[in-house]
Amino acid sequence: MKIKIINPNTSTEMTESIDKAAHGCARPDTEIVTVCPKKGPISIENFHDQYVSVIGMIEEIHKGVKEKFDAFIIAAACEPGLEAAREISPVPVIGIAEASMYLASMVAHKFSIVTVLPRIKALIEEAVNRAGMSVKCASIRTTRLTVLDCENDPALVMQELTRQSKNALDEDGAEAICLGCSGMTNFANQLEMSIGAPVFDGVVSAVKIAETMVDLKKYTSKVLTYNYPEKKKYKGFQELTSVWHQS
Amino acid sequence: MKIKIINPNTSTEMTESIDKAAHGCARPDTEIVTVCPKKGPISIENFHDQYVSVIGMIEEIHKGVKEKFDAFIIAAACEPGLEAAREISPVPVIGIAEASMYLASMVAHKFSIVTVLPRIKALIEEAVNRAGMSVKCASIRTTRLTVLDCENDPALVMQELTRQSKNALDEDGAEAICLGCSGMTNFANQLEMSIGAPVFDGVVSAVKIAETMVDLKKYTSKVLTYNYPEKKKYKGFQELTSVWHQS
Amino acid sequence: MKIKIINPNTSTEMTESIDKAAHGCARPDTEIVTVCPKKGPISIENFHDQYVSVIGMIEEIHKGVKEKFDAFIIAAACEPGLEAAREISPVPVIGIAEASMYLASMVAHKFSIVTVLPRIKALIEEAVNRAGMSVKCASIRTTRLTVLDCENDPALVMQELTRQSKNALDEDGAEAICLGCSGMTNFANQLEMSIGAPVFDGVVSAVKIAETMVDLKKYTSKVLTYNYPEKKKYKGFQELTSVWHQS
Amino acid sequence: MKIKIINPNTSTEMTESIDKAAHGCARPDTEIVTVCPKKGPISIENFHDQYVSVIGMIEEIHKGVKEKFDAFIIAAACEPGLEAAREISPVPVIGIAEASMYLASMVAHKFSIVTVLPRIKALIEEAVNRAGMSVKCASIRTTRLTVLDCENDPALVMQELTRQSKNALDEDGAEAICLGCSGMTNFANQLEMSIGAPVFDGVVSAVKIAETMVDLKKYTSKVLTYNYPEKKKYKGFQELTSVWHQS
Amino acid sequence: MKIKIINPNTSTEMTESIDKAAHGCARPDTEIVTVCPKKGPISIENFHDQYVSVIGMIEEIHKGVKEKFDAFIIAAACEPGLEAAREISPVPVIGIAEASMYLASMVAHKFSIVTVLPRIKALIEEAVNRAGMSVKCASIRTTRLTVLDCENDPALVMQELTRQSKNALDEDGAEAICLGCSGMTNFANQLEMSIGAPVFDGVVSAVKIAETMVDLKKYTSKVLTYNYPEKKKYKGFQELTSVWHQS
Amino acid sequence: MKIKIINPNTSTEMTESIDKAAHGCARPDTEIVTVCPKKGPISIENFHDQYVSVIGMIEEIHKGVKEKFDAFIIAAACEPGLEAAREISPVPVIGIAEASMYLASMVAHKFSIVTVLPRIKALIEEAVNRAGMSVKCASIRTTRLTVLDCENDPALVMQELTRQSKNALDEDGAEAICLGCSGMTNFANQLEMSIGAPVFDGVVSAVKIAETMVDLKKYTSKVLTYNYPEKKKYKGFQELTSVWHQS
Repeated sequence: MKIKIINPNTSTEMTESIDKAAHGCARPDTEIVTVCPKKGPISIENFHDQYVSVIGMIEEIHKGVKEKFDAFIIAAACEPGLEAAREISPVPVIGIAEASMYLASMVAHKFSIVTVLPRIKALIEEAVNRAGMSVKCASIRTTRLTVLDCENDPALVMQELTRQSKNALDEDGAEAICLGCSGMTNFANQLEMSIGAPVFDGVVSAVKIAETMVDLKKYTSKVLTYNYPEKKKYKGFQELTSVWHQS
Repeated sequence: MKIKIINPNTSTEMTESIDKAAHGCARPDTEIVTVCPKKGPISIENFHDQYVSVIGMIEEIHKGVKEKFDAFIIAAACEPGLEAAREISPVPVIGIAEASMYLASMVAHKFSIVTVLPRIKALIEEAVNRAGMSVKCASIRTTRLTVLDCENDPALVMQELTRQSKNALDEDGAEAICLGCSGMTNFANQLEMSIGAPVFDGVVSAVKIAETMVDLKKYTSKVLTYNYPEKKKYKGFQELTSVWHQS
Repeated sequence: MKIKIINPNTSTEMTESIDKAAHGCARPDTEIVTVCPKKGPISIENFHDQYVSVIGMIEEIHKGVKEKFDAFIIAAACEPGLEAAREISPVPVIGIAEASMYLASMVAHKFSIVTVLPRIKALIEEAVNRAGMSVKCASIRTTRLTVLDCENDPALVMQELTRQSKNALDEDGAEAICLGCSGMTNFANQLEMSIGAPVFDGVVSAVKIAETMVDLKKYTSKVLTYNYPEKKKYKGFQELTSVWHQS
Repeated sequence: MKIKIINPNTSTEMTESIDKAAHGCARPDTEIVTVCPKKGPISIENFHDQYVSVIGMIEEIHKGVKEKFDAFIIAAACEPGLEAAREISPVPVIGIAEASMYLASMVAHKFSIVTVLPRIKALIEEAVNRAGMSVKCASIRTTRLTVLDCENDPALVMQELTRQSKNALDEDGAEAICLGCSGMTNFANQLEMSIGAPVFDGVVSAVKIAETMVDLKKYTSKVLTYNYPEKKKYKGFQELTSVWHQS
Repeated sequence: MKIKIINPNTSTEMTESIDKAAHGCARPDTEIVTVCPKKGPISIENFHDQYVSVIGMIEEIHKGVKEKFDAFIIAAACEPGLEAAREISPVPVIGIAEASMYLASMVAHKFSIVTVLPRIKALIEEAVNRAGMSVKCASIRTTRLTVLDCENDPALVMQELTRQSKNALDEDGAEAICLGCSGMTNFANQLEMSIGAPVFDGVVSAVKIAETMVDLKKYTSKVLTYNYPEKKKYKGFQELTSVWHQS
Repeated sequence: MKIKIINPNTSTEMTESIDKAAHGCARPDTEIVTVCPKKGPISIENFHDQYVSVIGMIEEIHKGVKEKFDAFIIAAACEPGLEAAREISPVPVIGIAEASMYLASMVAHKFSIVTVLPRIKALIEEAVNRAGMSVKCASIRTTRLTVLDCENDPALVMQELTRQSKNALDEDGAEAICLGCSGMTNFANQLEMSIGAPVFDGVVSAVKIAETMVDLKKYTSKVLTYNYPEKKKYKGFQELTSVWHQS
């Protein structure tokens, strides 16, 4: 099977980290292709970044549909444009936040999400609500980390993740941790050992869920909400429109 | 005061209707400028349309900030990119759905939203939840109407609006109606007379709320969630980046 | 247009403060009349006070309907008798808590309410729930202030408001503040400057919403819940009954 | 023990029915005194009636406290002024809606409330929410009955109660019925036999709960919300104020 | 009337304490029989204990139905097997947690539950949700106590109960306390005096509710959820099956 | 890897069907062992059945832990004893309802559950709430089917599943279906083709999730709620106690 992972920011370093983590967990017969869009923000840390990232992400889904991928993964914790991707894709599209939250809920009574800068909290809350997981989410803990710190300052990342994860276990009622940034994927194992509780990285969680969906021959429901969009004129998005007309 | 209304789709007919409705309710000293983006979908009827419309909408906010507008209105019922607009704007940004729901809640125990095609329901639900109005919203009623029908087939619009509004009053517990599409703005008065209950058009509601915000010298809170975005590289969005660096 | 503001307590000092704040924000063509009932408690700080205040408030609405006011405002944060007022009034009746919460929700992700003594919290919670705003309300913060302190000890008021507002921003996730007592109306601007976040006073918010309702020719829905009460015998409330029979 | 039941409307016929039902279920050593206020509406069918009824009800509580009653019952399904009564009473004050809902929840998975005219629904909803019972309440079913029909047209009452109770069992998931009007107290047994499901009358439920509270020597918590009101000037409510100063 | 109390753990000391408390509050004409199952855990402190305790509890209900008891009480705060007991019993089955929470809600705005070891919290949460009381429950406070400490170390019990009850009143908004373990029944009065707020013991609360149900001739609804189970083969539960076939 | 599937009822026919479905979807390197307990009900259709089934299920988990299985699956839609199983197992324990609901949520906006007899609804609701999925669950649709019909009357099963699934899509807003009984596992593909929407069978979903958990080396969190139970005396459950002491 062929799974396409789209890192919605334009950081090639982070794209490589995600790709490495995905290859590390994928089955031998799973072909992983990880890309980042040609357009968009270098990191996603607010709503403006998030919305701007969607165009490039959608283009990659459109391309991926033509290339006959069997599933897609949106590799950002705020899952930009997830519903739009589902509309244009016949095959499953998995967000990394939902994948990690659902898995965490099956080995722990409640989980907390540990993520980057404080202002990201509102974006993560939307992902929690979209997945219906507000009852199982003990808290969203933010840190002093930027998204790009995850690539550049591993010592700081481990320090911040450990501190806020322990706080979540001690004070918020969390019994597992979900990592709230795709740049944190390489810290999951070390953090798990350090805090003594299951830690779920979204990238790895989403790869396994995507493999499951393909194994089960599941597709995106076209009953109503995620049905293909009506074909119509999109001014100023040539490449998008042309991809669209061919699909 | 100067208020900029952004119709996030690219239909100039609908932009004119919105402009006319806004001028009809604005105070004499309020300058209304209604625009639609140069880029984007001709109508917004699904998540894909909605996300694609955001880029053009954001550009118009960036421009409007430079032009020193006192408030902005996003004139689509799904309020695409509302949070992003608030991040980049120092002045208030009002969505037409929230404005109409809040006003309706002050003259009716519960309201229903009557809108276009069935698949739009998930988008409208997000607007209801974002405004915190799920307790006051008796139902979201969809119709057979497309967005562009609102411009082209007034008889069908009145027929569908009347039927579903009456159903909402009779079966769902609604005691007022909010119109769930900016293209319906000209039907509010006629519908109100026809059904005997208050009808709130979002465009008109938002103009009055925007005037209020300016009168009260209110601005968008920059405490955390809606603070200005961190400046960073946006590949492939030249005009957006350049606007950004100047603000 | 003519708007009648009813301060449901019998403090003439507070009524004057409210009147001054309302005149300060009303449009030149808006006639503001601010009254307090002849009967009732000197301040509203618990459920007993609140219920006793309703009779006098209702009488003022009955009188105001005969005097052809275009809108009414109930100027206490617990909004005593709001639904009853809506039943007997053909024109909109606006509560100061709902008005401030709805406006705050359009410029801030979440707001907190800062109010008087701890026991008032249960009354304010009812106003939050009635408006459907529990999702947007980060917290209700109480202080050491009585209602009458707001008239008599401005230094203490500013100190308490500032402290609890800052706590709400720092600890509760609030990004704007709603003032939870009509006696605090004159402290809004100073507090806003002091804490660096939007502050919404209910009196001023309600005046602007009332003007909007009148501009839009909106009335109270008579579909069911707020329909005129059935005419019936009220023993022991002569003036109320007689007003009633004439309306 | 001595229990005072206050029927908040001024119908002496209904007060007698309530008294009879209460005597029918009270223990031999329980002294029941049932009164209606000297002032107020002949029936409570909307918010205006409800608020006007509170003054008389409060006076009866004030008197009852002086007369050393061991518990109070507010015998209207909308429980007017319940929190105020709790503030001024050292002993328990029981509402008939909460008493019936709590008992019903212990013999049935979910219950429905069957009550009078459609517009009462919003008042009953408040009682449901105040008791925290929205999860257990399958529906609130209204009828064509006025409150006074309950005294005057028993055939119509049984017909309407039976029809709506059966609808609630068949369509809404109810497995027990709570009667939503104190005037329905005499129909409980017949309805129970007719529909084959437990039926809870509020008057009878509240009498037994009140006896329980007295048996257990429980009192109203004075920790905060229901603490005695601060003593203050009440203009125009002479009898109320004088009662107040003596307590 | 005859009420059977089932302590679902096998501690005879605790069963005696429960029996004593029940006799202390029951009416003279109420016959109380308190038993513990022959099988099951010595105490219930986790889900495993809870599920293992259900078989013995169910057997006691089956026996009790044959013995014509008028009501049953399940005397553990997590109320193991409550719904199953209701299915097999024609007469009411009362859980001690629900009984105490419902009574507490009628004399206090909100209550907290104070219970044993931290891990019990998830079990108590289920009881709160099952009763629909999450809105009225300010918090669940755990202690260092095991269930058996309640029999063996009264000084420690009073110390822990007092500390956590005061914390609940001071920090969580509680205005009454429900005891979250049937072993705490003898500490209720002393705790109530110590903290100055109503304290509700579940055993005593349930006895009075059970008496009420019998007085009112109420039975368990057999409409659907709690209807008698379909008769079928139960391998390996001889005594259970034989009891079953006779009922 | 070795996965043990426990069908909590004692039907060997259903156990064989489950085993066949599991083998049909498991990877070649996954060893599947499907068992049913020696004790318990022949089918689970009410709370009494459910609680009685838990003892046998727990015994199988205890045995499976000694046999070094890598994951467990509880193959009944009401997931009897799921939390207890998690306490005693170091490795993941997956319920079939949660697995199917989480997967359905990633390809459809909302799903409905179609299950057996009406009274099972309350048990399925608990599974939905335990998984936090009430927001994503459009409805629980029951049928005329008993659990054993699923083995014995395939024509009736397909007829009932098709009818209620279509009703869920047409009337409730569902866009995917989860099968609410492990006996329905063989009907998933045919139903999916018949209704044109994704259908998730719990057995198959749980097998893939279990494989994922093992691939990711995830274990059950022992932080608090699912920590190993305290060792204590269990009267009358010899085999259970002895298993326990060895683990």
